[in-house]
Amino acid sequence: MEFSSSLLENAVSEFAKLPGIGKKTALRLVLHLLKQDPGNVAAFGEAVLKMRREIKFCERCYNVADATTCAICANPLRKQELICVVENIRDVIAIESTQQFSGIYHVLGGIISPLDGIGPDQLTIEPLIQRIPKEKTEELIFALNPNIQGDTTIYYIQKKLQGTPVKITTIARGIAFGGELEYADEMTLARSITNRLPVEKYVQH
Amino acid sequence: MEFSSSLLENAVSEFAKLPGIGKKTALRLVLHLLKQDPGNVAAFGEAVLKMRREIKFCERCYNVADATTCAICANPLRKQELICVVENIRDVIAIESTQQFSGIYHVLGGIISPLDGIGPDQLTIEPLIQRIPKEKTEELIFALNPNIQGDTTIYYIQKKLQGTPVKITTIARGIAFGGELEYADEMTLARSITNRLPVEKYVQH
Repeated sequence: MEFSSSLLENAVSEFAKLPGIGKKTALRLVLHLLKQDPGNVAAFGEAVLKMRREIKFCERCYNVADATTCAICANPLRKQELICVVENIRDVIAIESTQQFSGIYHVLGGIISPLDGIGPDQLTIEPLIQRIPKEKTEELIFALNPNIQGDTTIYYIQKKLQGTPVKITTIARGIAFGGELEYADEMTLARSITNRLPVEKYVQH
Repeated sequence: MEFSSSLLENAVSEFAKLPGIGKKTALRLVLHLLKQDPGNVAAFGEAVLKMRREIKFCERCYNVADATTCAICANPLRKQELICVVENIRDVIAIESTQQFSGIYHVLGGIISPLDGIGPDQLTIEPLIQRIPKEKTEELIFALNPNIQGDTTIYYIQKKLQGTPVKITTIARGIAFGGELEYADEMTLARSITNRLPVEKYVQH
């Protein structure tokens, strides 16, 4: 693409660095901003700069935070003895959006994946192990993606916690609501039969 | 969506204001930026701020410019007597990318569209009329989208220029390269027959 303005070209090439944004989309976004009020564009640019400069990671759970402790850990209404272990911040947001979880979190920052060169030491597993006796955690719920790496991570942490008096659970796996049996993979279908539930638990009123 | 950080929430809601970017995509983009080096994010934010603050519109052709005259108008190698009339900046970029046009431009800033409340006075038609005698323009090429509004705009400007010694042309309309006759609309197909070309012009070597 040929631009007659280097200011435009710079802005477009910065946008085009974002994942899933090509040159044409980047141009569309930049021309949209160009039509906006300068105040709105300043608000956009400054929100991005401020976010990167000032955002912190919670010292306790490694979630994003505005202060040294995140809003969830700092909330006295949340059950502090119930920790939900997730892979990343996006999972925290997904679970929070359900408004069904009243405990706190622990963000691993990834999952064990030897093929990608990610071992336990690159994750926040050690801090998690240390939290449990310190915070008198009663239950650890693993909410990891159901795949080999997720299972390996659960297995590794479970091993590390042998002898620690903490209940370890994982989110239910099975056929998603609205899903169709015939399109489910064999692993999911097999597990959903093995871990079948009594009907009174299934149909919630 | 529930965020535990207002800094993150602000950045996501600013991104979600962009056209075609929903909340989920906005979050993905912001989390991508969060993982980047602070210097890269600063470069992104500042490119956007600087673009909106410093970009100018060429005094002559209304294209985007870094100075009072755009790089195309200021280029002595471009044919100054050949003006290509386009609707917006995006069209300038599209034509420049073909590297086939050696004249200069005039950006109308839209097309006449009474249904959208856009009349000739909201466009840069008057400045275009004034450019022609002043710049001794020899030819005006209309490169507008081929639709009723585009045709109305051409007709209006042509009327205004009656008596002015300038050749007025429009970009060729017909079946696009790689297009299929059976899927072409009737108007395009009819026009492509009426305005048929001698074969030696069609097959270019």
